[in-house]
Amino acid sequence: MSERFESRRGKLLHSMRKLGVDALLVSGESNVSWLTGFTGDSTWLVLGPRICVLVSDGRYEIQLSEECPGLEVLIRKPEVKLHDALAKVVNGAGLSKLAFESHLLTFAAVEEIRSALPDVELCPAVGQVEELRAIKDVEEIAEIRAAVDVAIRGFYAVRAVLTPELTELNIAHELEQTMRRLGAEGTSFDSIVAADDRAALAHYRPGRMPIGDCSILLIDWGANTAGRYKSDLTRVLLFGKPTNKLVKVYETVRDAQQRAIAAIKPGVTCGEIDSVARGHIKDQGYGRRFSHSLGHGIGLDIHEAPRLAPNSQTVLRPGMVVTVEPGVYLADWGGVRIEDDVLVTRDGSEVLSARLPSDLESMLVD
Amino acid sequence: MSERFESRRGKLLHSMRKLGVDALLVSGESNVSWLTGFTGDSTWLVLGPRICVLVSDGRYEIQLSEECPGLEVLIRKPEVKLHDALAKVVNGAGLSKLAFESHLLTFAAVEEIRSALPDVELCPAVGQVEELRAIKDVEEIAEIRAAVDVAIRGFYAVRAVLTPELTELNIAHELEQTMRRLGAEGTSFDSIVAADDRAALAHYRPGRMPIGDCSILLIDWGANTAGRYKSDLTRVLLFGKPTNKLVKVYETVRDAQQRAIAAIKPGVTCGEIDSVARGHIKDQGYGRRFSHSLGHGIGLDIHEAPRLAPNSQTVLRPGMVVTVEPGVYLADWGGVRIEDDVLVTRDGSEVLSARLPSDLESMLVD
Repeated sequence: MSERFESRRGKLLHSMRKLGVDALLVSGESNVSWLTGFTGDSTWLVLGPRICVLVSDGRYEIQLSEECPGLEVLIRKPEVKLHDALAKVVNGAGLSKLAFESHLLTFAAVEEIRSALPDVELCPAVGQVEELRAIKDVEEIAEIRAAVDVAIRGFYAVRAVLTPELTELNIAHELEQTMRRLGAEGTSFDSIVAADDRAALAHYRPGRMPIGDCSILLIDWGANTAGRYKSDLTRVLLFGKPTNKLVKVYETVRDAQQRAIAAIKPGVTCGEIDSVARGHIKDQGYGRRFSHSLGHGIGLDIHEAPRLAPNSQTVLRPGMVVTVEPGVYLADWGGVRIEDDVLVTRDGSEVLSARLPSDLESMLVD
Repeated sequence: MSERFESRRGKLLHSMRKLGVDALLVSGESNVSWLTGFTGDSTWLVLGPRICVLVSDGRYEIQLSEECPGLEVLIRKPEVKLHDALAKVVNGAGLSKLAFESHLLTFAAVEEIRSALPDVELCPAVGQVEELRAIKDVEEIAEIRAAVDVAIRGFYAVRAVLTPELTELNIAHELEQTMRRLGAEGTSFDSIVAADDRAALAHYRPGRMPIGDCSILLIDWGANTAGRYKSDLTRVLLFGKPTNKLVKVYETVRDAQQRAIAAIKPGVTCGEIDSVARGHIKDQGYGRRFSHSLGHGIGLDIHEAPRLAPNSQTVLRPGMVVTVEPGVYLADWGGVRIEDDVLVTRDGSEVLSARLPSDLESMLVD
């Protein structure tokens, strides 16, 4: 296992060369975890050609020795601040130029580091580790597949026991409990379960009213595996005979998603994929009703690189795993979002959640 | 309800005067929520004597109109960045000096705001809203009481069904499920359930091995109410007759906690409270084994102001609610932590979790 992390650190050291610094301060929790295997928080990694040290505290002393055997660790005492412990490491190694993750460290934390290291040049760096993390290796893809599979099984289990008496919150909790029973740590984010007009709220929190005889039930959920890789899916269940309007909205969103997925392949930009879906929805007259980006990478984080967003110049590469999730939301009526997890392959893409159909017919609940 | 938020904004406007700025950019999710009632994310509040605007995006348009009636809202389009939408608001209002939450905004976000607002002076400000949030009002204290009560009921329910076949993870999930059944949204953080030597890991994640015939079972858990106020408790269950060493460690931690709680009253600094517990543990020979701070405020966040940490000069005031959680951790053996939630009252303190005993006798499981 530790070779896996060593190899990742090797890749980072290589890609860091262009920064021209003595070391990078890795402060992001998932970034530290991806580079070392450590699963706790409040721990920084200082990595450079001549240095590799974790700066942590007493709560994690034993855990670090178990999860990161062989890595050098500085344990600070409760009365020593993290940035002061960092300063000790940086000065001890005689580093004069240190890059930091400016998109993750707060402004105040950078000021504190600056005061603690007055003679060290601090250089903002964005997304160094995230860029590497965007390309998943074989084990990571297997973990995401497992997260997708558990999520799908959870969905089927919950769909099978739906009754009008259940609240949105009951359904969300039932989903989580089922996925846990199947081996997941839990959900990858707080599930969204939204009936009828609530489905128009793209980031709704489930409520405590029974779903009753709703027509639309939007469920956006995902599983978090034991290895902490995540899935993220959305389906909309339709109760009774859908109205013409609902059919039109549903088919618009589904077509937009299918077209976007068909366009995914190495070399295409994320912005182009977003515009395929967005263009179709606009053509159908719902342009203003698709109020968010098309998708995002998934992995150790539920939102990571790359983003499928308007104008994004990021180029798709094999090994990237992204959600594709167009939606149309109409106030006081409801909404439809369809979301799958898609792996970019050498010659196109593979929908990891393909075995969960999303055609309208399959979404009808008797 | 909206008067409650208006009154909070009034308090902030008053305390902001000393900053000498035209407005404060409130970017922290819990801070925005505390000031407006909005429960989503990715939304900033610009607040000053002449301005009060929420900057958000289409996902939240409907939710904002429901949760924050009467508040001015700017909805940006997906292709407009948050900092550019902010610039529009700030320039539109003719503001020339803007404070920002430097402990919450990333360094990169501040750089982006700076580029978008080249003619506006940006002033770092730390903890303006958090300082107000540290003092809970009557409704907030009632919410925290509810979170404590649900957590206690969950603990009793799970304690009643403990069997050697259950894994730490089973127990964590059972605890959450029970608290949800009792009306909680879920846990206030990922529960820690740690048997024997794992109890030495202060921030352990529950594992998949049955607890079997363990001697020590440390459980650190809390509930999140529907209103999103949180509780945070720890108890250590003891199976079989405890060894002399275990008794000594247990009583040391409990005495340290009782002494610290007895010292809590308005006017005392957080550092003094920390040192009461730390001093006692040191006197008993375990000084180096208490590897974290004594406690922290709880409220909308699971960790908030004030912190009971070494040397903290923050003065306790009535209405503050803090955890008091000393611990002693011995590698390859185990650990004991006892944690209660304590309200600072006018003349001392009230242990909100007092009805869950923590004396050694009460922790013995047959």
